[in-house]
Amino acid sequence: MALIVQKFGGTSVANIERIRNVATKVKKELDLGNQVAVVVSAMSGVTNQLVGYVNELSPLATQAAWSEYDQVVSTGEQVTCGLLALCLQQMGIPARSFTGWQIPLQTDKAHGKARITHIEPDAINAALGEGMVAVVAGFQGIGPDGRITTLGRGGSDTSAVALAAALKAQRCDIYTDVDGVYTTDPRIVSGARKLDKISYEEMLEMASLGAKVLQTRSVEMAMNHGVVVQVLTSFADVPGTLLVNEEEIVEQKRITGIAYSRDEARITLTEIANIPGMSAALFGPLADANINVDMIVQNITEDGRATDITFTVPKGDLDRALAAVEKTRDKLQFKSLHADKNVAKVSIVGVGMRSHSGIAQTMFNALAEKNINILVISTSEIKISVLISEEYTELAVRALHAAFEMEQA
Amino acid sequence: MALIVQKFGGTSVANIERIRNVATKVKKELDLGNQVAVVVSAMSGVTNQLVGYVNELSPLATQAAWSEYDQVVSTGEQVTCGLLALCLQQMGIPARSFTGWQIPLQTDKAHGKARITHIEPDAINAALGEGMVAVVAGFQGIGPDGRITTLGRGGSDTSAVALAAALKAQRCDIYTDVDGVYTTDPRIVSGARKLDKISYEEMLEMASLGAKVLQTRSVEMAMNHGVVVQVLTSFADVPGTLLVNEEEIVEQKRITGIAYSRDEARITLTEIANIPGMSAALFGPLADANINVDMIVQNITEDGRATDITFTVPKGDLDRALAAVEKTRDKLQFKSLHADKNVAKVSIVGVGMRSHSGIAQTMFNALAEKNINILVISTSEIKISVLISEEYTELAVRALHAAFEMEQA
Repeated sequence: MALIVQKFGGTSVANIERIRNVATKVKKELDLGNQVAVVVSAMSGVTNQLVGYVNELSPLATQAAWSEYDQVVSTGEQVTCGLLALCLQQMGIPARSFTGWQIPLQTDKAHGKARITHIEPDAINAALGEGMVAVVAGFQGIGPDGRITTLGRGGSDTSAVALAAALKAQRCDIYTDVDGVYTTDPRIVSGARKLDKISYEEMLEMASLGAKVLQTRSVEMAMNHGVVVQVLTSFADVPGTLLVNEEEIVEQKRITGIAYSRDEARITLTEIANIPGMSAALFGPLADANINVDMIVQNITEDGRATDITFTVPKGDLDRALAAVEKTRDKLQFKSLHADKNVAKVSIVGVGMRSHSGIAQTMFNALAEKNINILVISTSEIKISVLISEEYTELAVRALHAAFEMEQA
Repeated sequence: MALIVQKFGGTSVANIERIRNVATKVKKELDLGNQVAVVVSAMSGVTNQLVGYVNELSPLATQAAWSEYDQVVSTGEQVTCGLLALCLQQMGIPARSFTGWQIPLQTDKAHGKARITHIEPDAINAALGEGMVAVVAGFQGIGPDGRITTLGRGGSDTSAVALAAALKAQRCDIYTDVDGVYTTDPRIVSGARKLDKISYEEMLEMASLGAKVLQTRSVEMAMNHGVVVQVLTSFADVPGTLLVNEEEIVEQKRITGIAYSRDEARITLTEIANIPGMSAALFGPLADANINVDMIVQNITEDGRATDITFTVPKGDLDRALAAVEKTRDKLQFKSLHADKNVAKVSIVGVGMRSHSGIAQTMFNALAEKNINILVISTSEIKISVLISEEYTELAVRALHAAFEMEQA
């Protein structure tokens, strides 16, 4: 008898009718002879309403305030897990709901963005052993002080994968409103193709590069614990995309996916004095301000005495980043400071890069043919990202999708 | 430094603006130098919405279903306690919210209508000791199996009084949408007068006779633990009504209050064989069916061989009661069985009855003058109830209020 963890997002449990639909998905796994633990999000819209109440009352400037935020916002998932358990019971399927503290799913004390430290499997295993479906409230846990914590938006994916790891589940099915992971955003490229399989590393790059199918942390956790994750839709009865180890993907394409992100802003400093410790002096204050610097390029002038530096930060952090950079002006003696919000990052991702050559060349040629200027390049072993002017985003994604012949299965 | 427990009902916390108003009431007590623990209900309408979801999914026929009911419905108070804590914090007042399980407030396992077994005061005392306001989710606790329980509708009053007893509070202020306990329903008698004080026993009679200011169980608990309870409104700054021991009411009126209830139905059996065990044979099956029999009168025929019995049951239980009585027909050999839903119970209540004579006479004369026929009478040491035709309810209440000169303070 295999154990399957199923996770249903907010749109899948948006109302009573959809909760009934979810119950039929649970029943289907049971009918296959499996045990089932289900993780649910809040009914769609509920979390936003609760967060709205909180924001009306508090700027959330303290840990004590975030602790109350968690007390309030975690109720959305508590309601859904109770309702789904009731629905299953009414279908004659024994079921019991679990909040985070009832499992317990233990986290650190970082209210509002807690990390899971340990999941005690005994209570859920006992329920499963009694022939019950365990219905778990996603997104929440309990901190070391006995207060409710939440895992950050989208945290129910992480709850589900962590639970699958703790229970040693055979598979973790993440039901969303899309039916799998695509080669790229189907809203931009009509010929985007659903992938049957994708490796953890590729999915991790896709998620952190802006593909919003899964929360990045949940992919990381699946990779670290070897949890087989399937992304699929609750609105149709079709197979989704499996996240698996690289070795399980038999024939590797050159490129697996194309991601893009409009959440970038570019900062350029010109003619910085080229002195030792210059990078530390610049990026230290940004790190202190908790600003995540992504792409970095540096060019040295011909005479070697000065250097230009360009880097990107999240758009929402741009003003704080500029303030932090301004404070280094005396030390770095840069000539000018430019910022640009109208940029986008387009990335190609694929473990096939390791074994295929000429990938970068194909990418740059495809962009050049459309007269798209590359502002910054950054690479890792399995991805190449370029920063371009934001208005070319869709054009670039389509050009790359065609250049790498990704419509063909 | 005194400790005050404040309780705010659903209309007092119906939206963010009203929650801010509640916070000012808390602050006022703090400014007087008191410690404060606050018990809150769900925002008005929320519990009904949650119960509506549950009812769509389940007939609640099992303990397992009621356990999920509690999981769902208890979230309303959890939201409010977090929001009020945030609001207080934002005003510079340290505050921490507590759900039932975080206190813990322990109950029996009767999901949906649990009774409090023990309140552990340490966690709340620790918070108060650190100079915090403790904000407690009403209506909920934790059962012996670690599942959330709820105390039944209106249970937040009971939470507040029980908490006041456990914390040995100086006073428990119950804020509602009425500003105190009145001699009778002001919607019926415009001259109804707000009472400064009422004894626990009187309040208990008033509450169980239909005055909906406080939940009966909360009054019982206040009486048993000697908790001084004040009923007052959160919408104006006026004193309310104090519930105190009888001895603290210096000058006792003949009658303190007049209550009425339209929730009665009358059942009459005629010419029952007058045999030993007849009452047990009739009322046993009703008790087995969990039907609460209220007023009972029995008349023996002149020859002593047969008897008529009339009694009342809650209107909602009438059909079940008739079915239970029908099953006794063979044994009791009654001649006829009548039922009447169009009746009301009107009661006068007052500890003054113990020391004043002629109370019953005044009551019956007042009703006779208005040609109101009395169907059944029942009495206790401090109350006289009569069953009358429902259409005379308001007339009877007004006649009695006048007859006992209750408008005068």
